[in-house]
Amino acid sequence: MADAKLLETFGTPTESPFVVEHVSEEFTSLCPKTGHPDFGVVTVIYQPRPARAGGVCVELKSLKMYYQSFRDQGIFYEMVTNTIRDDLQALMTPAWMVVRTDWKGRGGIRSVIWATAGDVPEVWMRR
Amino acid sequence: MADAKLLETFGTPTESPFVVEHVSEEFTSLCPKTGHPDFGVVTVIYQPRPARAGGVCVELKSLKMYYQSFRDQGIFYEMVTNTIRDDLQALMTPAWMVVRTDWKGRGGIRSVIWATAGDVPEVWMRR
Amino acid sequence: MADAKLLETFGTPTESPFVVEHVSEEFTSLCPKTGHPDFGVVTVIYQPRPARAGGVCVELKSLKMYYQSFRDQGIFYEMVTNTIRDDLQALMTPAWMVVRTDWKGRGGIRSVIWATAGDVPEVWMRR
Amino acid sequence: MADAKLLETFGTPTESPFVVEHVSEEFTSLCPKTGHPDFGVVTVIYQPRPARAGGVCVELKSLKMYYQSFRDQGIFYEMVTNTIRDDLQALMTPAWMVVRTDWKGRGGIRSVIWATAGDVPEVWMRR
Amino acid sequence: MADAKLLETFGTPTESPFVVEHVSEEFTSLCPKTGHPDFGVVTVIYQPRPARAGGVCVELKSLKMYYQSFRDQGIFYEMVTNTIRDDLQALMTPAWMVVRTDWKGRGGIRSVIWATAGDVPEVWMRR
Amino acid sequence: MADAKLLETFGTPTESPFVVEHVSEEFTSLCPKTGHPDFGVVTVIYQPRPARAGGVCVELKSLKMYYQSFRDQGIFYEMVTNTIRDDLQALMTPAWMVVRTDWKGRGGIRSVIWATAGDVPEVWMRR
Amino acid sequence: MADAKLLETFGTPTESPFVVEHVSEEFTSLCPKTGHPDFGVVTVIYQPRPARAGGVCVELKSLKMYYQSFRDQGIFYEMVTNTIRDDLQALMTPAWMVVRTDWKGRGGIRSVIWATAGDVPEVWMRR
Amino acid sequence: MADAKLLETFGTPTESPFVVEHVSEEFTSLCPKTGHPDFGVVTVIYQPRPARAGGVCVELKSLKMYYQSFRDQGIFYEMVTNTIRDDLQALMTPAWMVVRTDWKGRGGIRSVIWATAGDVPEVWMRR
Amino acid sequence: MADAKLLETFGTPTESPFVVEHVSEEFTSLCPKTGHPDFGVVTVIYQPRPARAGGVCVELKSLKMYYQSFRDQGIFYEMVTNTIRDDLQALMTPAWMVVRTDWKGRGGIRSVIWATAGDVPEVWMRR
Amino acid sequence: MADAKLLETFGTPTESPFVVEHVSEEFTSLCPKTGHPDFGVVTVIYQPRPARAGGVCVELKSLKMYYQSFRDQGIFYEMVTNTIRDDLQALMTPAWMVVRTDWKGRGGIRSVIWATAGDVPEVWMRR
Repeated sequence: MADAKLLETFGTPTESPFVVEHVSEEFTSLCPKTGHPDFGVVTVIYQPRPARAGGVCVELKSLKMYYQSFRDQGIFYEMVTNTIRDDLQALMTPAWMVVRTDWKGRGGIRSVIWATAGDVPEVWMRR
Repeated sequence: MADAKLLETFGTPTESPFVVEHVSEEFTSLCPKTGHPDFGVVTVIYQPRPARAGGVCVELKSLKMYYQSFRDQGIFYEMVTNTIRDDLQALMTPAWMVVRTDWKGRGGIRSVIWATAGDVPEVWMRR
Repeated sequence: MADAKLLETFGTPTESPFVVEHVSEEFTSLCPKTGHPDFGVVTVIYQPRPARAGGVCVELKSLKMYYQSFRDQGIFYEMVTNTIRDDLQALMTPAWMVVRTDWKGRGGIRSVIWATAGDVPEVWMRR
Repeated sequence: MADAKLLETFGTPTESPFVVEHVSEEFTSLCPKTGHPDFGVVTVIYQPRPARAGGVCVELKSLKMYYQSFRDQGIFYEMVTNTIRDDLQALMTPAWMVVRTDWKGRGGIRSVIWATAGDVPEVWMRR
Repeated sequence: MADAKLLETFGTPTESPFVVEHVSEEFTSLCPKTGHPDFGVVTVIYQPRPARAGGVCVELKSLKMYYQSFRDQGIFYEMVTNTIRDDLQALMTPAWMVVRTDWKGRGGIRSVIWATAGDVPEVWMRR
Repeated sequence: MADAKLLETFGTPTESPFVVEHVSEEFTSLCPKTGHPDFGVVTVIYQPRPARAGGVCVELKSLKMYYQSFRDQGIFYEMVTNTIRDDLQALMTPAWMVVRTDWKGRGGIRSVIWATAGDVPEVWMRR
Repeated sequence: MADAKLLETFGTPTESPFVVEHVSEEFTSLCPKTGHPDFGVVTVIYQPRPARAGGVCVELKSLKMYYQSFRDQGIFYEMVTNTIRDDLQALMTPAWMVVRTDWKGRGGIRSVIWATAGDVPEVWMRR
Repeated sequence: MADAKLLETFGTPTESPFVVEHVSEEFTSLCPKTGHPDFGVVTVIYQPRPARAGGVCVELKSLKMYYQSFRDQGIFYEMVTNTIRDDLQALMTPAWMVVRTDWKGRGGIRSVIWATAGDVPEVWMRR
Repeated sequence: MADAKLLETFGTPTESPFVVEHVSEEFTSLCPKTGHPDFGVVTVIYQPRPARAGGVCVELKSLKMYYQSFRDQGIFYEMVTNTIRDDLQALMTPAWMVVRTDWKGRGGIRSVIWATAGDVPEVWMRR
Repeated sequence: MADAKLLETFGTPTESPFVVEHVSEEFTSLCPKTGHPDFGVVTVIYQPRPARAGGVCVELKSLKMYYQSFRDQGIFYEMVTNTIRDDLQALMTPAWMVVRTDWKGRGGIRSVIWATAGDVPEVWMRR
């Protein structure tokens, strides 16, 4: 089961604003209806709070282990996306964040889901 | 004939705003003039209303069956696009929605049609 | 000679706003200086007026015949673009329209021309 | 049902050997198990017999109508490919022929089938 | 554990030689050293024996289930490739077969493995 | 009408064998059935005879003028290809030659035609 | 030496606003430090003043000759870009203009320079 | 160790605003945890202050030497990005600046970091 | 300095012939003339001897460490390629092997080097 | 004028056969008819003779200077290609060599020229 306790952080290394994007092309979970595997790409973009405000960044290897914890879980696309957003929001409370999941096609339809936290500048929503 | 009764929904799984895109590269209908098949890609992007407002999402397999119901119908590009927009708007009344159809060329001209519902943020209109 | 009388229309099928793009990759005319053929891609994007306002759409096959009427005409890039814009504007008086022509290179320089009618939302000007 | 009687020919216009390839990106039939539509690209490559040997070429529009006759037929990938090969072989008895079908993915697996007639030079088998 | 008993076949539908390729972009197993997931693309190309020789083809959905049976198995790249080759060879004894696996990078190095059965014509080995 | 008298040559500049490819992406002629324009890419690859054997090369600007002479001619794909092959063969009698025409799609089918002269090494036939 | 006197104009053919882009992929000058050639792509985008305001457009062949006049000049990237902007601004005084130069890499670093005149709408600055 | 003293400048050659982008695809440093090399692409975009305000530009070869000074340093992605931003900001105090680093994947996750100085127009933040 | 003692092997897991390709996009060494870093992609393709002949395969992580041992070495492109070929040949004595290095451009020229061992089937030499 | 005396060599560093490819995307010369610049990509592929046979390789920087010596020369495509082949053949007498030049389009036709020395294995002629 997805396990947010696997996530670790490190302190934001600067007072100046910056933006971080992590793209994982190796995400898999299970369809809760059929039990078949789903495969997707998970992208997280966020602006950490500044150091003086106690800002933190998610540690990369812990993020990988967190994603792996979905491997045997039956869970819908929308819930994967919202769960990752909620877990990372609780972990970092960033200035803003976008979580995007791109899923391989099923039945001839492929899907993308975006979930956000805070006030995301429009330029980061889509490219 | 296109049959909106095939469409099913599930409740929006969160109060937080999120955006969903479904891309079907396997759409076909018939040209009402010539009877020849038309082939297109249908993209739907929408933001469901939040759960507390009774928001719903279209179920993926039912969307596939709904698209298949156009297979033997003689119908123009513009009407396909507006019909899908109207049927999904009636089904979900989302915060906003874009329906885009990309058609394979006919006579050396290929066409794209966009129909919208609600107030679509500009970043979602085109890429 | 380019012949706008070839153009035909059909009534806008809906009251809701929508946007249409037609891309023709098979446009050719003649250079008025050298007589050599020019080859280009012509893209038209427009939002028809709603049905209640008497809105109309250009019919696809008539658009193809209209483009073919430039085949033996000596005419500069800029004039091709402005002529198509003026003829379609007179035909449809759409809410707004963009006509874009992409020309194959001549002397190592390739050119693109945009002509507009009405107040084109920025997102439709370029991609 | 697939109807080979739709196919027409014209006489090979030359004594010199030449090779013809026709690529149709708009093929659809039905899965005989599920009834769901299958979508594929059908490529035919062949060398007609020379004119003096009574060689003929398949007429392009009749080929299109022949492909459309599969639209409502339940038929497996392999049988589509072999049927087209057999029908065109009976029609033209070319020097050699390759029929290739590329199918959109089903269940995460996409398939390609090649069927041949005569002695196909290796360079035409794959690229 | 990889389970070859999941594989099913159907009889070769023709006496004429033909070639089949199945590409699965959704393969995952586990690294036997680290326990971390590996992700790859598995391609199988083969020529079935003709019908009169008792030739058979692997059924597509059973192939998908067979691939899924590697999901929880710790197994090296080379062994995945050889296992699939051996299992499909035992199942079908095709005229010839290529199994190719393309693995996502690890430590900055990405790998491809080819295993073959029978006398594979060179044109099918690489593209 | 296609006019081979427009073609000019210059003497092969060397005794050593070499190969020349000319690709024109701006070819247009007319369909003899419908009168509508056809658009294609014409590629010529050849090895001139050596200088001592009186070898010649086609001059580039004259080749352009020759291609333009097809602009108002009603002529099928196969005949365009064979005509260019015959005219260039008569002009240069090269060691070998390939003429390839790639045509934009008509009715959802796009075509490629290859005509050859002499004994073309396999590596030059396809890529 | 870059010679702005080579530039010629023609009158803007319309009162309606339009935009012109010229892309030259064949620009070369010399590095003033090393004397080695620099190679770049020069893109000019501008909106001419309307005809009633005496608007003019740069003539395409004269632009080519002007670019060629940099061939033997030792000049830095930034100065090439600013010189072209200044010369075209003096020639046309357009409503607005962007000059962009993309340079092939030197020492593992490739550079792009943008210079502007007037108030350039944001959508034309970057794509 | 990263050595900002390697950086050199030259005076802004114009009073008119312009924008400069330098892309280096050959950046490498060391992971401070594992000691393994990291590889990335470093992009700097900035608008120099005008000449009258004492504006300066970073000299290209000195930028290359500065990047090379990270080669043997153990340093995290975020710190690389912030260090380059801080060093170039101290060197040039440009009107605004973006520093973007794209890192090759580690453990199946690839990362991008953006750090900024001053008020960056949105169009320059992402493409 | 490049250190072949870092390389480790494991026994070929099968009697059947198979082929292995490892592509590393993160290779760097130093130019022995200028001391500047060189960056390249190193590809190794080989067929191990069968198990009964004592065949071995290079272990992936040890290959990565071996490549890293070139990081501080001044060495020409050709020597890098030949050294890797010689070290892997001594390690594995495979049936055949290709080592290919693709180097980023220097002075506007980019280079590729191929070194081989044994009798490499032509299909593996180039793609 | 093209100056072969600029070319320098170094001794082949090994007895084992290997192949070298140098690709220069920054070649320019002048059209002898019009005086306008021509731009091309020059690719050289060769197998040096082994060290014991006195084999040599062309030095990379000297090759760059040699290519630059064509900058002000009026010379046809075919002659550029044959001159480079002859000069490098005289310099290195390699086991075999291919010189390929790809020229930017003129009058809508782009050209490629191949000249060879020795017995070039087919796999190196084209890709």
